Amino acid sequence: MKTPVVHLLCTLLITPLARPAEIAPLRGYSADSTRDEREWEAKFRAIPDPANVRAYMQRLSARPHHVGSPYDKDNAEWILSKFKEWGFDAKIETFDVLFPTPKERSLELLEPTHFTAKIEEPTVSVDPTSSQHTEQLPVYNAYSIDGDVTAPLVYVNYGIPDDYEQLDRLGISVKGAIVIARYGGSWRGIKPKVAAEHGAIGCLIYSDPHEDGYFAGETFPEGPYRPKDGAQRGSVMDMPVYPGDPLTPGVGATKDAKRLPLSEAVTLTKIPVMPISYGDAQPLLAALKGPVAPQAWRGALPITYHIGPGPAKVHLNLKFNFDIKPIYDVIVTIPGATYPDEWIIRGNHHDGWVNGAEDPISGASALMEEVRALSLLLKQGWKPKRTIIYCLWDGEEPGLLGSTEWAETHAEELAAKAAVYINSDSNGRGRLNAEGSHTLEKFINGVARDIEDPEAKISVWKRMQAFRIANPDATDRQEARNRADLRIGALGSGSDYTAFLDHIGIASLDLGFGGEDGGGIYHSAYDDFYWYTHFGDTNFVYGRALAQTAGTAVLRLAGAELLPFDFDNLTETIRRYIDEVERLARDKRDQIIERNKAIDEGVFAAIDDPRHKKIPPAKEPVPPFLNFAPLENGFVALQRAAELYDHALAHASENGGSALARANLRDANMRLVQVERSLTLKDGLPNRPWFKHQIYAPGFYTGYGVKTLPAVRESIEQKDWKLVDEQTVKVGKVLENAGEAIQGAAAELSRSAQ
Amino acid sequence: MKTPVVHLLCTLLITPLARPAEIAPLRGYSADSTRDEREWEAKFRAIPDPANVRAYMQRLSARPHHVGSPYDKDNAEWILSKFKEWGFDAKIETFDVLFPTPKERSLELLEPTHFTAKIEEPTVSVDPTSSQHTEQLPVYNAYSIDGDVTAPLVYVNYGIPDDYEQLDRLGISVKGAIVIARYGGSWRGIKPKVAAEHGAIGCLIYSDPHEDGYFAGETFPEGPYRPKDGAQRGSVMDMPVYPGDPLTPGVGATKDAKRLPLSEAVTLTKIPVMPISYGDAQPLLAALKGPVAPQAWRGALPITYHIGPGPAKVHLNLKFNFDIKPIYDVIVTIPGATYPDEWIIRGNHHDGWVNGAEDPISGASALMEEVRALSLLLKQGWKPKRTIIYCLWDGEEPGLLGSTEWAETHAEELAAKAAVYINSDSNGRGRLNAEGSHTLEKFINGVARDIEDPEAKISVWKRMQAFRIANPDATDRQEARNRADLRIGALGSGSDYTAFLDHIGIASLDLGFGGEDGGGIYHSAYDDFYWYTHFGDTNFVYGRALAQTAGTAVLRLAGAELLPFDFDNLTETIRRYIDEVERLARDKRDQIIERNKAIDEGVFAAIDDPRHKKIPPAKEPVPPFLNFAPLENGFVALQRAAELYDHALAHASENGGSALARANLRDANMRLVQVERSLTLKDGLPNRPWFKHQIYAPGFYTGYGVKTLPAVRESIEQKDWKLVDEQTVKVGKVLENAGEAIQGAAAELSRSAQ
Repeated sequence: MKTPVVHLLCTLLITPLARPAEIAPLRGYSADSTRDEREWEAKFRAIPDPANVRAYMQRLSARPHHVGSPYDKDNAEWILSKFKEWGFDAKIETFDVLFPTPKERSLELLEPTHFTAKIEEPTVSVDPTSSQHTEQLPVYNAYSIDGDVTAPLVYVNYGIPDDYEQLDRLGISVKGAIVIARYGGSWRGIKPKVAAEHGAIGCLIYSDPHEDGYFAGETFPEGPYRPKDGAQRGSVMDMPVYPGDPLTPGVGATKDAKRLPLSEAVTLTKIPVMPISYGDAQPLLAALKGPVAPQAWRGALPITYHIGPGPAKVHLNLKFNFDIKPIYDVIVTIPGATYPDEWIIRGNHHDGWVNGAEDPISGASALMEEVRALSLLLKQGWKPKRTIIYCLWDGEEPGLLGSTEWAETHAEELAAKAAVYINSDSNGRGRLNAEGSHTLEKFINGVARDIEDPEAKISVWKRMQAFRIANPDATDRQEARNRADLRIGALGSGSDYTAFLDHIGIASLDLGFGGEDGGGIYHSAYDDFYWYTHFGDTNFVYGRALAQTAGTAVLRLAGAELLPFDFDNLTETIRRYIDEVERLARDKRDQIIERNKAIDEGVFAAIDDPRHKKIPPAKEPVPPFLNFAPLENGFVALQRAAELYDHALAHASENGGSALARANLRDANMRLVQVERSLTLKDGLPNRPWFKHQIYAPGFYTGYGVKTLPAVRESIEQKDWKLVDEQTVKVGKVLENAGEAIQGAAAELSRSAQ
Repeated sequence: MKTPVVHLLCTLLITPLARPAEIAPLRGYSADSTRDEREWEAKFRAIPDPANVRAYMQRLSARPHHVGSPYDKDNAEWILSKFKEWGFDAKIETFDVLFPTPKERSLELLEPTHFTAKIEEPTVSVDPTSSQHTEQLPVYNAYSIDGDVTAPLVYVNYGIPDDYEQLDRLGISVKGAIVIARYGGSWRGIKPKVAAEHGAIGCLIYSDPHEDGYFAGETFPEGPYRPKDGAQRGSVMDMPVYPGDPLTPGVGATKDAKRLPLSEAVTLTKIPVMPISYGDAQPLLAALKGPVAPQAWRGALPITYHIGPGPAKVHLNLKFNFDIKPIYDVIVTIPGATYPDEWIIRGNHHDGWVNGAEDPISGASALMEEVRALSLLLKQGWKPKRTIIYCLWDGEEPGLLGSTEWAETHAEELAAKAAVYINSDSNGRGRLNAEGSHTLEKFINGVARDIEDPEAKISVWKRMQAFRIANPDATDRQEARNRADLRIGALGSGSDYTAFLDHIGIASLDLGFGGEDGGGIYHSAYDDFYWYTHFGDTNFVYGRALAQTAGTAVLRLAGAELLPFDFDNLTETIRRYIDEVERLARDKRDQIIERNKAIDEGVFAAIDDPRHKKIPPAKEPVPPFLNFAPLENGFVALQRAAELYDHALAHASENGGSALARANLRDANMRLVQVERSLTLKDGLPNRPWFKHQIYAPGFYTGYGVKTLPAVRESIEQKDWKLVDEQTVKVGKVLENAGEAIQGAAAELSRSAQ
């Protein structure tokens, strides 16, 4: 073992100052293998061609390609043929899933005047594919139940729990009413779920021009934003309970799988629900009376927003074909040369709601170009150490069907072998948005430093950093300047990483560029090649950048001697989450004490306007102090393990990582693969056992939005104090388990490195 | 001199525990005189009758009564006749002022399509006075210059300096353009002033439905908000330079006053300016292209807001009659029995833009009912110690003409005698809003504790407190619970207190109820009796509450043995202002350092979207550290004096205030009257000598919005660092002067009280 001084001298001797970047070893690589890896990566990044990305999109979005459509299958087969043409071992895996499509759809305003909603997206003359009406799925929400309901209308803003608290203060009930909610504020499936919990019998969801129309910018086809008659299709399946086929929870929807009867599929909605355009919504909203909506509830329609109930009375009729449809996942496997039983998985879905150029073909096309580039590398002699699996998922739109059923089918093998899952979905112009497991935060920062932004001609990392420095929040700004890595967000749900991360516990990343090409064609018939080539990443340079980014990540993960997980950033991030939940509990307590005090003081009566009376909130029991000690103890164990691992890795990396070669890497890697698994619990979260990860989950009442330390955080939010004290014990134990897993990896590394 | 123990015993002996509130002595009163005063006040508050307030409004708002109109004079004469009928010594004082009215008004969109603006407010059939078109002043801005201009249009949001900084970043100049700004964000006169500074040649100001139309609530006549064709008249005189007649700055506009030629009247605008409705604005805004306006700039019209310039091209033609018109101030004097040379002045204007029911007749009617109530008290033998002067001002709307000319005419006598000025203006339903000199903060809190809120049936003070407790800001909430007095805001401008406070240095208050009756008829033809009796304080109980509040304040000030000024709250408030300006300087410095750093780092280039390029800001010299020591030294002197005064007053108030009777009250009071004067400087503020108060002023670039410690604060805002160091010396000296004045009053009180 060398002294630090000698080490420094050695470093100086072997580091030609002119080329420091090339020599700085990659995490998990020795200096020598770093040099090789960097050469392969440079070759790789030179290959993707925007013209190809464009051509794939043109082909794949030429016709509507939703689940069950002829062109969905046609696309899968074409993708398969391309992969085979490029020399790969590729196949299609098929599942059979519940996929309802509309049989009857109607919406009428009956009182005080009569109006029939169009619920159709008209042809736009300059846009050639917008006229493919016979093949288009109509405007609807998948997994709504059937219903024929007539009732007064109530406007509920975003339709999230907070909105119903405000309705309570106004003395307005939605019991027996049909609610109209605007898109935004939560994932759409939350709106009918919360509405039904409050007794509503039907739900309409519309796109307000404030979030999604002329307020944001010029509308299609003059501009990229949602036109008057454009509507947002989408799934309303209760995915926070479990995603995937509603009839086969927890198992793959293979031909012979045991299926629930439809009546037992709990992820269908409880009430009928349909999305409408703002053209259809305006007459309904304009017919409401009752209190003027609170300022934050008002959108950009040229009306005074009222809440109701009524006098507007609406009739909503929905009937669906609850059919079983096949879905087609296209899978490519590149066997690993050294560690074939460690898998790097990379996916993007190929199904769309209609033509789906942006969502998902912008991402799917980039992924295809990645695969083509790898085929060329293989021909030049590149050999990945680990097995690489590329997946083009079907059925993401209705409910992450293709990825979930595949993951459930291969769950056992995935649990044993999957090291990392890298997802993408829609892609556009702007900066890289990376979210995922914090064990990969340092890694993806390293990748981002090596990709050039096609507009700014600086690294995409530099550009991300610049956006954070430009942030008005001084703390974030200083952190962006001074912290080694830019923080990545945690994953909620909304794309195909969900089963990998939340169900199996595989470290995952979600990557995509965006932020500059705003628009309002999400899940509409206008999300097509015309729109994308006029308003999106029109020259496909960000399609190339995505292929370069995700492909570099795949190469670097597959080629590393030691999997480049990092536990310092994980530990630091979990510390923040613990602080957050402790603060949340404190704040909830303080808020209730404060509100009770204000009620006692007569504050609510004193500020009431007798012409717009409000119902004062009721006093609530003051929450007890909660026991966060188990989290703190678990955290200390995790932190100690992370330090041990750092020490072991630093030791192994001395002398250009020459010690790495002598390490028991196979066992160290296998231990590392299991670290993310150690963050899960077999029993899952309270009341939703499918979700096993204890650090990340989509919120039960937010849908896509993440809840970190979900068991603890949501128990606090739902004021179930007893449950909090149970869950802190469980999650504390999970942190200890993770500490043990990390310590195990450190031990393998230390033991054999000496 | 008694020991505290004896004092306590005495207090117990003379204090029947059942009636502690009545015995608690009023500030400036002995226990005995408190009892008398409270009896008179109770009698007074029983008199005002909502039916009378209603009747005055019906009469005074029956026809348009702007400056120069027949009904303006008729109203003044009718008010005079009522005052005489009630037995008062009343008179009309007349001044002759410049008051421009429109001769020609036209606005056309020339390109890309043609549209002619209506600029007319149509008759509303249910509203009887809305049809009085022959008597109505048309929609216009008073003190705009003549102009006939044709130019491309640019949308400038509120048209305040910050908005032009954003335009600079977008590379858009208004040079040679006509700007269109929405109302809000500043006083209207700032918009043409800043536009002209940036080279614009014309200015339109419109009411966006977001702030003032259907977004806020149902429009007139279905609801109280501004209808499509309603427009906001108003003055655009450069009042932050000096208010009042533009031709007679600093002197009364009496018949023989020396007048400036029109060409030298600097408070007229530099470019032509006209207000328009949102009905007229929509076609103009919809015709703009260029960048989409930043999110915060977008209003509630159903269009995408663009900035331009062009292709919209407009033609604006304005010609005015620049006439001299008479104005009629109605003045009532009630001579003081003990201190006739100490004046309590109370005012509200009577002129409106059209029928002006809310603005100003809701306040003027309450004031009339106050005067009637005093007439009944006088008949019962009440004798105020001090002289009371009630004023109904004319010409407030065009530029505080009646109050300013009167104050300038009587400046010398006012400087010697005026103790307090109490203003009101529009009045409505809701809570009391009190603003003014912090020497009166404690006093007006005491008054508010004794007035019953007609809706909540608790004191108006309790209701104000409840609103602050309901505030989401925890600091404000705790302060509202724990501080002895609720804070009052500082006065900027926008009503008739301006000359009294800012020019002469008379401690002033502005009082009014509101906050519940929102509306959008401000300065329109629809501000009339129909509107007010349907949407305002329809049963006039808040009219009565205003009469009770302001009248109680007048009685209590006029009847006190010692003027009830307090210097602790003043001192504490000035401490906050000093902290604010010191922080402002620090923040400005930090911001410039931070932005320079970001420029050096290339942040602005890195975040730029090449399809929507922005011009990076230029580097700026880092501001020097500034010398705030003179403010700190001045503050210490002031603080010490306030403590001395407290001590003297506490001493004088011992034993139920019996020592007060033996004090040299005449001299103490005369010293107290001069304290607010000691906060002024003869030379006034930098570049606007008319404004002499050194603690409060309307902002040079906000108009109505107050700037406290204005000389220092505005020099920092305008980055004139040399001027800051000059002004801290001057203002520090002012604080020392105030300390001396207070110490003088304390000395009179202490000397004679022993």
